[in-house]
Amino acid sequence: MPETWANQEIDLHLELAGPRVRAGLETALRDAVQAGRLRPGARLPATRALAADLGIARNTVADAYGQLVAEGWLTARTGSGTWVTQHPVPARGAPGSHQPDITHPRYDLRPGVPDLSAFPRRAWLAAERKALSVARDHVLGYPDPRGLPQLRLALADYLARARGVTVSPSRVVVCAGFAQGLALLGQVLRARGATTIATESCGHPGHRLIAEAHGLGLISLPVDAGGAVPDGLSAGGLSTGGRSAAADAVLLTPAHQFPLGVTLRPQRRRAIVEWAVDTGGLVIEDDYDGEFRYDRQPVGAMQALAPEHVVYAGTASKSLMPGLRLGWLVLPAPLVDEVVAAKEATGGLTGSLDQLTLAEFISSGGYDRQIRHARLAYRRRRDRLVAALRLQVPHARVTGIAAGLHALVELAGPDSEDDVTARAARHGLAVEGLGHYRAAGQYAPALVIGYARPPEHGFTTALARLCAVLTGAPP
Amino acid sequence: MPETWANQEIDLHLELAGPRVRAGLETALRDAVQAGRLRPGARLPATRALAADLGIARNTVADAYGQLVAEGWLTARTGSGTWVTQHPVPARGAPGSHQPDITHPRYDLRPGVPDLSAFPRRAWLAAERKALSVARDHVLGYPDPRGLPQLRLALADYLARARGVTVSPSRVVVCAGFAQGLALLGQVLRARGATTIATESCGHPGHRLIAEAHGLGLISLPVDAGGAVPDGLSAGGLSTGGRSAAADAVLLTPAHQFPLGVTLRPQRRRAIVEWAVDTGGLVIEDDYDGEFRYDRQPVGAMQALAPEHVVYAGTASKSLMPGLRLGWLVLPAPLVDEVVAAKEATGGLTGSLDQLTLAEFISSGGYDRQIRHARLAYRRRRDRLVAALRLQVPHARVTGIAAGLHALVELAGPDSEDDVTARAARHGLAVEGLGHYRAAGQYAPALVIGYARPPEHGFTTALARLCAVLTGAPP
Repeated sequence: MPETWANQEIDLHLELAGPRVRAGLETALRDAVQAGRLRPGARLPATRALAADLGIARNTVADAYGQLVAEGWLTARTGSGTWVTQHPVPARGAPGSHQPDITHPRYDLRPGVPDLSAFPRRAWLAAERKALSVARDHVLGYPDPRGLPQLRLALADYLARARGVTVSPSRVVVCAGFAQGLALLGQVLRARGATTIATESCGHPGHRLIAEAHGLGLISLPVDAGGAVPDGLSAGGLSTGGRSAAADAVLLTPAHQFPLGVTLRPQRRRAIVEWAVDTGGLVIEDDYDGEFRYDRQPVGAMQALAPEHVVYAGTASKSLMPGLRLGWLVLPAPLVDEVVAAKEATGGLTGSLDQLTLAEFISSGGYDRQIRHARLAYRRRRDRLVAALRLQVPHARVTGIAAGLHALVELAGPDSEDDVTARAARHGLAVEGLGHYRAAGQYAPALVIGYARPPEHGFTTALARLCAVLTGAPP
Repeated sequence: MPETWANQEIDLHLELAGPRVRAGLETALRDAVQAGRLRPGARLPATRALAADLGIARNTVADAYGQLVAEGWLTARTGSGTWVTQHPVPARGAPGSHQPDITHPRYDLRPGVPDLSAFPRRAWLAAERKALSVARDHVLGYPDPRGLPQLRLALADYLARARGVTVSPSRVVVCAGFAQGLALLGQVLRARGATTIATESCGHPGHRLIAEAHGLGLISLPVDAGGAVPDGLSAGGLSTGGRSAAADAVLLTPAHQFPLGVTLRPQRRRAIVEWAVDTGGLVIEDDYDGEFRYDRQPVGAMQALAPEHVVYAGTASKSLMPGLRLGWLVLPAPLVDEVVAAKEATGGLTGSLDQLTLAEFISSGGYDRQIRHARLAYRRRRDRLVAALRLQVPHARVTGIAAGLHALVELAGPDSEDDVTARAARHGLAVEGLGHYRAAGQYAPALVIGYARPPEHGFTTALARLCAVLTGAPP
């Protein structure tokens, strides 16, 4: 075979000893493709030939090729070799994942994603094996669009117990994360004639986009230390005798405001529920991290105050992983059929295996165990974040309650959010400014620190880099 | 503990010996709940007490309770016992699953669902374990809305090889079965100003509903022995020099028309592609069972004739199981971003675990193996169906090509479709008449027999009952 690596005239700068050979080869090949030194359609040397050229094991070459095939840079056809992919798939962030286009930073403290290395792969597989071992065949057919009965039952039990939700399985609709839940509600609200939804003036930009994509206009509620200020919901006000609503619905994060980290005050909860009862408005309670409260027992769901006026929305994205795309709505009875019909019309049904597995995982106690572990781990990380900042960056102030997977770090120094995020990026640390979430109003410059995100072994360094970046010292 | 089973004064008629103890207990309890002998809210005896009463192992009781909790009849709370569920979830058919409200018939020959007992549970779990063992953590984060790169690569390779599709991974969008794929296309077509879609005059009613739900008007193409007649697509016609399109898009099942079972003639394929090129119309090729052809090599995808004008749509619903909710579109390049944007707006993303597993299952050859097994099994069943009918019901004629998971059985006798389906239902056999699928035009009365659906051990009896029902003899 005349084709050897030397023929390609590519300088690989390989570190050819020790356990890093494969990683080095992978990186060198990936760089060569990205830089265009290996052009689309170019054929790579056979694994045997390259291994001989480089004096390394053939399996090492095959593994590196395999990884790059999996990433889409290379294409392999059995019997005819390996090629540089003609139209490589560029890396791209998912919506709402807060991932910019930079490829995986070395350290990542952006919010919205839990520690993915803590996903209990083994326990999940065991639960799936158990669930599949008892599932009857018909469960593998076209699934109930509301979600499998097993899962709705397990969720109803769990939500009543852990979050104080007023719920029966017939009120639960399983969805592909909160994004789909919100999209379905947007569709139903629009079909009912709704025109306007109120959102917190600082919040998830993806949620505002979804509401707009379904034809709803947005108004913003300011957020202060007591959570969202509900005055803007009613155009009239009590003094005029009756209220005329400025919004048809309101989207809130009552347990732990995202991203400001405050809790909605009890009197405001009541005022918002009263608004809903008086005007027929709908409250959407996004309880994305309600299980994670560290100072005392979690605040129960606002939904229990008025189950016929509040939609409770939960998700496995923070408690397990976003890749599951599993969330749930607990709906006022009259909305159930409309939401299910909207789900059927979009065809966005969730697969049965994940549903069966989550039902088993909840029923067997595995889900509670996972949350207990994560709560402990994240609480420690938050304590370490607060302590490190107090010691090393006294001018930075951590605000919000001791809860959830993120904290707000106010920048009292001269730097803007952009200054800090740019400086961090130069040091391999991804952080996000509060500005990314602001729809209206003014807030003190701050970073939204997702302390839950790094793997456990990377948290110490990530935290050290954050402190260094905030003090201006080279990390 | 004063509470024993005897206190409940319920006669269980239990068969208390041998391996059927648990099943017997389950059935007895289920019947008691269904019949109202155990009322909603009633507390069941503790497993220990009931086991002692009945002289059986406590685990047996716990297993039976667990099964009924999973089915929704009972509710368990840790530490406080087991109760009859207050609001049991009634069984309900999924959209497009062709399931009427009758609960699981004893024998089922309705089309649209493969043999669910043949889903390779063990191989699937093994593939998932392998995929999870090598997946990097970031794969568990928010997934790429186009589908995971691994899966798009595996699908591109498979579809090029097995179905002759012209494809690169960047043209593939993973979706939750064909229903979601069609809904996304409907949304994109509507946003582009399309008003009308042509469908086959006999076809899946759920697909017509999805198109209408997205604001598209329907026109029907007649179907004859050569497949859909494309004349209706062009309002003008060639003689007038230019064509003015009557439809903006057309939805077809070219490889194996559903439900009539014919193949689209080559000259019609070409005519439809020419229509698309001339008018800018879009062809949607629903290749729901293209892998299953028994007389010769499968006909390649129509998409390859004009990849920029034809959307190829495939699914794992027939090759694996509908519960996976996994399908794929191969799109003309300009449509990719619009379809992905529509998918993001609806939030209907597919979970990563099923995607990783399918990618591994395809790459390892497991998917091909599964299809080979199923093809052989279904081919035998079709042969047996044809032979049995020829022998026992000579007036019934099987039409359509030797392919797929269903056959059309024309009723030449005096009975209407409704007569036959009603008679079959009385004998525990579910069948479906062609009328269920007819949107326009006249077709000879027929049954659409889904011979793939029963489990292997139930096929012989299902077939015998079908023959008996068709001859009018008591089965």
